[in-house]
Amino acid sequence: MPLDARASLTVLPVTGIGEVAPGDDLAGVLAAALGPGDDGIPVLEDGDVVVVTQKVVSKAEGRIVPLDHGDPEAKVHLVERESVRVLRRRGELLITETAHGFVCANAGVDLSNVADGTAALLPIDPDRSARRLRADVRRALDVDVGVVVSDTFGRPWRQGVTDVAIGCAGVAAVVDLRGTVDALGRPLVATEVCVADEIAAAAELVMGKDRGVPAAVVRGVPAAWLRDGSVAADVVRPAGDDLFR
Amino acid sequence: MPLDARASLTVLPVTGIGEVAPGDDLAGVLAAALGPGDDGIPVLEDGDVVVVTQKVVSKAEGRIVPLDHGDPEAKVHLVERESVRVLRRRGELLITETAHGFVCANAGVDLSNVADGTAALLPIDPDRSARRLRADVRRALDVDVGVVVSDTFGRPWRQGVTDVAIGCAGVAAVVDLRGTVDALGRPLVATEVCVADEIAAAAELVMGKDRGVPAAVVRGVPAAWLRDGSVAADVVRPAGDDLFR
Repeated sequence: MPLDARASLTVLPVTGIGEVAPGDDLAGVLAAALGPGDDGIPVLEDGDVVVVTQKVVSKAEGRIVPLDHGDPEAKVHLVERESVRVLRRRGELLITETAHGFVCANAGVDLSNVADGTAALLPIDPDRSARRLRADVRRALDVDVGVVVSDTFGRPWRQGVTDVAIGCAGVAAVVDLRGTVDALGRPLVATEVCVADEIAAAAELVMGKDRGVPAAVVRGVPAAWLRDGSVAADVVRPAGDDLFR
Repeated sequence: MPLDARASLTVLPVTGIGEVAPGDDLAGVLAAALGPGDDGIPVLEDGDVVVVTQKVVSKAEGRIVPLDHGDPEAKVHLVERESVRVLRRRGELLITETAHGFVCANAGVDLSNVADGTAALLPIDPDRSARRLRADVRRALDVDVGVVVSDTFGRPWRQGVTDVAIGCAGVAAVVDLRGTVDALGRPLVATEVCVADEIAAAAELVMGKDRGVPAAVVRGVPAAWLRDGSVAADVVRPAGDDLFR
């Protein structure tokens, strides 16, 4: 077959997840949605990668703080509190570096899809959030999945936001193809692919910002990538190695 | 169903494409791979988005130049010639802005998967490349597809490369969700999603740098996105609007 279905990837939105509140058991919510159906077989399968948005992770972990949406100064103060460094500032928009090492708009502080008068902060340790969710899903459903916590970041030079990984577990963040060869048999130089970001981007295509779908399942990720991963350790570029910090 | 298959996305690698040479008819190559099978039905369907890598587009368009791989100075000269501005320089690595407005490593000049003693340059107008490929596929197979030309870019602050769109046709580059509301019914502010980059990233997951697969089909892209798109016009951020240029 010219379209190799065995090597294909399927991205499925997880629908029917209601509002998530502080203290909610996110794995329980996912297990309820993706656990055994009438046929007794869990919808979730070994080797699936579950992508969940930062927003529901932050909500479940109680990373919600009061914020007067009408007070721009209060928002800037909150962003500064969540930042270790401000890279750029234009009006109310700050591009900052968070304690995790992420460089993003407004330190990831988010006012959309949260209750009025509140703001969502990034999880304290999104890799840990992913690891916990993975272990809880395994406990609840006896399936071994990868987990990616995604967030929506802008980027320099290109318009439009895309989803990236801010935490992962059970799936590689970066796959190092150095040491392998290109299609002509020559060694590849410096081809480390950030598959976690690509998985987050693929998931966003079925979640959408306006559809209220906070999770997706990516099925068909190569088995070799299903190993321990860490966004903090493997994706965050050390400042000394960064030409733009 | 908690996993909504109707809203799912499938990403399929196009296998069996051989080496592409200058002057080759890329649409013909794709049509041969994805045209009618034994049942007379084309594998490619209306609404599919075909992602092709810059490398095969550049090869088909003859954007291959001689370059002595052992001469770093020759490579730097070529990169400078392909650049309108150098943003950063570290040893042999230059981060430059191309005539298209793309900011990337080495102006997109690429030595992998090309014949020894040559280098591949970016297509002169990748949006036009995509439009032409789309029209040729429609003529050959009578199917209406979107086309994304992808390339592999690094980015500041994050390790690992990801694939992005450098040209598109028949599919939106950026989808503007402003004016719509979030899941709680409040207006969304500034949520322009670069779906073309996310489609390119999803495709990369099944193509891989070391697998010699230069094209993928993304099936299930929302119909509303299947309209005229342009990376040059909609994704390249104007320098005056850019905090990092």
